[in-house]
Amino acid sequence: MTTKNSLSCLLNPRSVAIIGASNDPDRIGGKPISTMLATGYAGRIMPVNPNRREVQGLEAWPTVADLPEVPDVAVVAVPAEQVRGVIEQLAERRVPVAILFSAGFAEVGGAGVAMQDELVAIARRGGTRLLGPNSLGCVNLHTGFVGSFTTLARLDGVFPGNVAVISQSGAYGSHLVSSLVDAGVGLSGVVMTGNEADVSLADVVRLMVDDPNTGVIALYSEGIHDGDGLADALKAARAARKPVVMMKVGRSEVGSAAAQSHTASIAGNDAVVDAVLEELGVVRANTTEQMLDIVRLAGRGIFPAENTLGVVTLSGGAGVIISDAAEEYGLPMPEMPAAAQARMLERLPICSPRNPVDTTGQFLNDPTLVRPFLEMMLDEGGYRSIVAFFSYVATMPAVAPMLREQLTRARERFPDRLYVLVTRGAREAIREYEAAGFTVFEDPSRAVAAIAAMGRFGRAFAAAPAAPAPSVPAVTLPAQTPTEAQAKALLAEAGIASAPERSCATGDAAVLAAREIGFPVVMKILSPDILHKSEIGGVLLDVRDEAAVRAGFDTLLERARQAAPDARIEGVLVAKQLSGGVECIMGINRDPVFGPIAMFGLGGVFVEVLKDVVFHRCPFGEDVAEQMIRSIKGAPLLLGARGRPVADIPALARTLSRLSAFAAAAGPRLQSVDLNPVFAMPAGEGAYAADAVIEIRGEGA
Amino acid sequence: MTTKNSLSCLLNPRSVAIIGASNDPDRIGGKPISTMLATGYAGRIMPVNPNRREVQGLEAWPTVADLPEVPDVAVVAVPAEQVRGVIEQLAERRVPVAILFSAGFAEVGGAGVAMQDELVAIARRGGTRLLGPNSLGCVNLHTGFVGSFTTLARLDGVFPGNVAVISQSGAYGSHLVSSLVDAGVGLSGVVMTGNEADVSLADVVRLMVDDPNTGVIALYSEGIHDGDGLADALKAARAARKPVVMMKVGRSEVGSAAAQSHTASIAGNDAVVDAVLEELGVVRANTTEQMLDIVRLAGRGIFPAENTLGVVTLSGGAGVIISDAAEEYGLPMPEMPAAAQARMLERLPICSPRNPVDTTGQFLNDPTLVRPFLEMMLDEGGYRSIVAFFSYVATMPAVAPMLREQLTRARERFPDRLYVLVTRGAREAIREYEAAGFTVFEDPSRAVAAIAAMGRFGRAFAAAPAAPAPSVPAVTLPAQTPTEAQAKALLAEAGIASAPERSCATGDAAVLAAREIGFPVVMKILSPDILHKSEIGGVLLDVRDEAAVRAGFDTLLERARQAAPDARIEGVLVAKQLSGGVECIMGINRDPVFGPIAMFGLGGVFVEVLKDVVFHRCPFGEDVAEQMIRSIKGAPLLLGARGRPVADIPALARTLSRLSAFAAAAGPRLQSVDLNPVFAMPAGEGAYAADAVIEIRGEGA
Repeated sequence: MTTKNSLSCLLNPRSVAIIGASNDPDRIGGKPISTMLATGYAGRIMPVNPNRREVQGLEAWPTVADLPEVPDVAVVAVPAEQVRGVIEQLAERRVPVAILFSAGFAEVGGAGVAMQDELVAIARRGGTRLLGPNSLGCVNLHTGFVGSFTTLARLDGVFPGNVAVISQSGAYGSHLVSSLVDAGVGLSGVVMTGNEADVSLADVVRLMVDDPNTGVIALYSEGIHDGDGLADALKAARAARKPVVMMKVGRSEVGSAAAQSHTASIAGNDAVVDAVLEELGVVRANTTEQMLDIVRLAGRGIFPAENTLGVVTLSGGAGVIISDAAEEYGLPMPEMPAAAQARMLERLPICSPRNPVDTTGQFLNDPTLVRPFLEMMLDEGGYRSIVAFFSYVATMPAVAPMLREQLTRARERFPDRLYVLVTRGAREAIREYEAAGFTVFEDPSRAVAAIAAMGRFGRAFAAAPAAPAPSVPAVTLPAQTPTEAQAKALLAEAGIASAPERSCATGDAAVLAAREIGFPVVMKILSPDILHKSEIGGVLLDVRDEAAVRAGFDTLLERARQAAPDARIEGVLVAKQLSGGVECIMGINRDPVFGPIAMFGLGGVFVEVLKDVVFHRCPFGEDVAEQMIRSIKGAPLLLGARGRPVADIPALARTLSRLSAFAAAAGPRLQSVDLNPVFAMPAGEGAYAADAVIEIRGEGA
Repeated sequence: MTTKNSLSCLLNPRSVAIIGASNDPDRIGGKPISTMLATGYAGRIMPVNPNRREVQGLEAWPTVADLPEVPDVAVVAVPAEQVRGVIEQLAERRVPVAILFSAGFAEVGGAGVAMQDELVAIARRGGTRLLGPNSLGCVNLHTGFVGSFTTLARLDGVFPGNVAVISQSGAYGSHLVSSLVDAGVGLSGVVMTGNEADVSLADVVRLMVDDPNTGVIALYSEGIHDGDGLADALKAARAARKPVVMMKVGRSEVGSAAAQSHTASIAGNDAVVDAVLEELGVVRANTTEQMLDIVRLAGRGIFPAENTLGVVTLSGGAGVIISDAAEEYGLPMPEMPAAAQARMLERLPICSPRNPVDTTGQFLNDPTLVRPFLEMMLDEGGYRSIVAFFSYVATMPAVAPMLREQLTRARERFPDRLYVLVTRGAREAIREYEAAGFTVFEDPSRAVAAIAAMGRFGRAFAAAPAAPAPSVPAVTLPAQTPTEAQAKALLAEAGIASAPERSCATGDAAVLAAREIGFPVVMKILSPDILHKSEIGGVLLDVRDEAAVRAGFDTLLERARQAAPDARIEGVLVAKQLSGGVECIMGINRDPVFGPIAMFGLGGVFVEVLKDVVFHRCPFGEDVAEQMIRSIKGAPLLLGARGRPVADIPALARTLSRLSAFAAAAGPRLQSVDLNPVFAMPAGEGAYAADAVIEIRGEGA
């Protein structure tokens, strides 16, 4: 009975009830039935209609209660006001999955939100999972199951294949499916999640990871509801070597506003989304075309972890365009070995054999050269990916059969490589190349982008598991925002070092502390009510002797009293002034979707003006931290650029990784941490936070 | 007789001779004739063949000398070894233009280069212009003139239109033409320049600027031979309001290498190409698709200088994707006025009326809403450009005619706007939308990119002429690389200020100079043989008193003697140490294609690590200089970011613009100038070069 209570029925139901079944094959309640009759769905279809004993030639029942067996899936195609009653009946009979087409719930706001919550609560009582509401439903192209009122399953040219489409938006999902079908891509399943009252993108990704027919997942999202769940599902996809291409819209500020007015979604910070998808080996598509290109090529199931590109072309210009694109997408194009180049020149003196291998139009005079040239590239050049540019010539009837045979014979000797043919012309000729294993692109630059994406999947699938995050002691956050000294003490327990410092309640104590620490020192006002000390003049740098310490103590107290008369003043912090290091910034911010996110950047103008920062979900180990540090544009400043001392990268990475573990251990009450600056000292001398601010979430949050 | 001697015959010859004419309509010497017989070319075709009195039904002559009249154009289709003789005959008869198909000249290097030079010299004697060699020739789609052995003029679906294609590469040019024809774009002329022994891209651009049939120019280049000429031709195109879309390949290092092995081209620094094209109002396409998209839309002839985007969509998801793209391409999407939003909501309560105007699928229930909604957007929203997203629905037979009528009626009221329809499906339906004035895209993001390009053209066409470059006195460069003091003196004559300084031959003189200038000072070794002083320790900063000046003098001389025993030492430069300013860098470098190019950036890490610099051709006025300064990413540091003092931007712009005028006046012997750093002092306090290096070109250069 376990399957009955699980979502796994959604893709492969043995029986389906249509609630609100219509005899009209084109109405919402009629279309799933007429479509399944056309697709040849082998399960039992049970129409429910209080007024008819027969619907589209099938026996019908008046209510859910009358059904002769419990269906695996119920498709609910009734007006919004009747949905509640139907869900009650479905829960009563413990139907595993209900698909809700009806709109008018959370997406319209107000009372719709409460109604939707109520549906979920009712369904849960019976263990019924809800897809929708406001969902276009679910289609399985392999079994012909159609829990949807779209015509997708009957589009011209649709056929079962290995690409699953998962979309929050029904309209955009349909557009994407029709584009894929048009491009000759076979589909496994299509699921539109709509409002995601219950079943989320993450749930459906997991379904597709388990679906043996699915090899590639195309994911479209306008707002992620369950960040951790989605991350886990995407990890499962990576472990199963199923590439995920994700379009997450709402990248821009305008776009995010549009996304919020359109769905009941939370649009997270887009740079965080980028970082998380990168971490999980997902390739992000920013346009529908990128999605199509990458999904199409991924359908070949070849993901070279060490990708290299070999190019054979009959146009030097195209060779240059492809080389430009390869550099842009970071795809190496090593030269052909010299011996092979020499042999190529022997056979075709006019060719340019380096890579791109430019055969010029002369090739056409003797197409039997294609195979030996390509084999030399595959064998001696060892390229994992091949782009062959043959312009519109490749589809000309006089050329196509011969060329296809030449290409095919080379491919059969090296079946583990990726083959892309850039050509244009007769659809029939293109289909034949596709059938022979050559993915056809019209635009050479797009071909290169797609090939580069296959390499990214390959590297993600092959990557060694990241080092574990360091373990830190349990963190007990104070009831409210701590002072700088308290913050540093909390962080010190997690192994995050600050510059030596003392909290001093009097001028005498400050002088004593400075003497112990050594001059010069930094002095800062100490108050739980003053977070941004420098804004009120509450920080003194480069304090060089005892008299200056004593005077500074009085100055800081006076400034604090003036700027914030009601602030509780606990004294002054005296700290060692660090010099000779590189100023960095580290921080934590709580993302509404993905929880605590660590940030790293260089300090000063780099973060202020250039936004040269990197993000990662917490927690993570030192290897990831070091990758982050090395990935920023300003990294050369830490790595000895132009005669600078090399910074203590291991210490910096250790600090960053411990900060991430601290954030994870601190739990949801931690709003943010700011370590600004952190001094990265020269190699071997450590990394020290010179300031620390911890914010606790307000009680309303 | 002037036209006879000019290149203007190339596009519109009244008569054409085919040298090496063949009776076989498919051979190289036969194809131009058979194609012109098919296209109905109205001029006289004169075959030349020593062995036939008749070719393809036309009277033929044995040699050029025998021709009954001087042809406007001669097409040369003979083997390479006969070309020289033919050119001699053509020059003899003063034929205005010869088109050379033959390959085997400069592109193969060695003796081919000399042979090609010889052809040009021979042709010049008769005033004959050469297109090629290694050229696919020229086609005029309006007159049916075909000086080419391609089949382009007979492609399926080809028709006369307003787009000219100019390409160095024949193979890539053909690919581009076939793509344009396939996309339903009408062509005016096609010219492939090949080796450009004589006729250059610039010459052909000028032809197209003068051609009344041409409205849009698509330009493909692998290497620019005549930078100044091309820049002038592109300026003429801008003045004629003819948009130029240029693909200049060889962007990457790999790509540049491929370009060099392919043609006899000079691939310039790509960032310089970007800067020059931007300056000239040319939109650069990096891929064939971008070229197609922009050319296609430009064919509408609508270039809004103040572009705004209104979006109507039946999918919220598509609205978000389009908004994301608009932000990426800098295309504003103002909201609809509140009153219009209210009226939209009245008529369609489920819509989201801000912009994107999301009508949801409900629109389809009442397509008569399309016109009033669109008219509200055009009238009250005032959008200059419209994207309508109707997915595949717009081409469905049940929807298309009604929707087209609605859209067309709105468009007729506002014919000066740009209209893009995003849809997919039946080719016939798409053609009908195109004919009705709606440019159709399948991908919404590409549509937005193309619309943004129209705005860039509009701004370029509407821009006020830039301020004139400042006039500077004539520059007389010394015979060899000057010392720092000489360099500064030269620059001072052009109005470029340095920090106050003195050249001092003795320690006593240095002390006196420091006293006059005021402490602290900077001291630098002074030698014509030591260009990079800091590398040998030849610079002392922050010298604070007379004793230190005296000691510093000896230290510098000693270091110079150790590091460069043979260097001529002229003494030490004592200069005021500037403080409180922002360190910038200015420079000049001689580009092999475009001559002296000015560079501006912030100093230190910005230029070293982040390559945050901007380029411009010399000379230019202060307005351009200020735009350059404001365009770098680090500009906020000069503009008062985070409480910094605002720098003296006018003085900085004046210095940069004068440097550009200096470089232009100095002529081709100037290899480079480095002002590093230039201190941009706080507003009103000026900008001063603290170091100056001028390099003179070696005699071999």
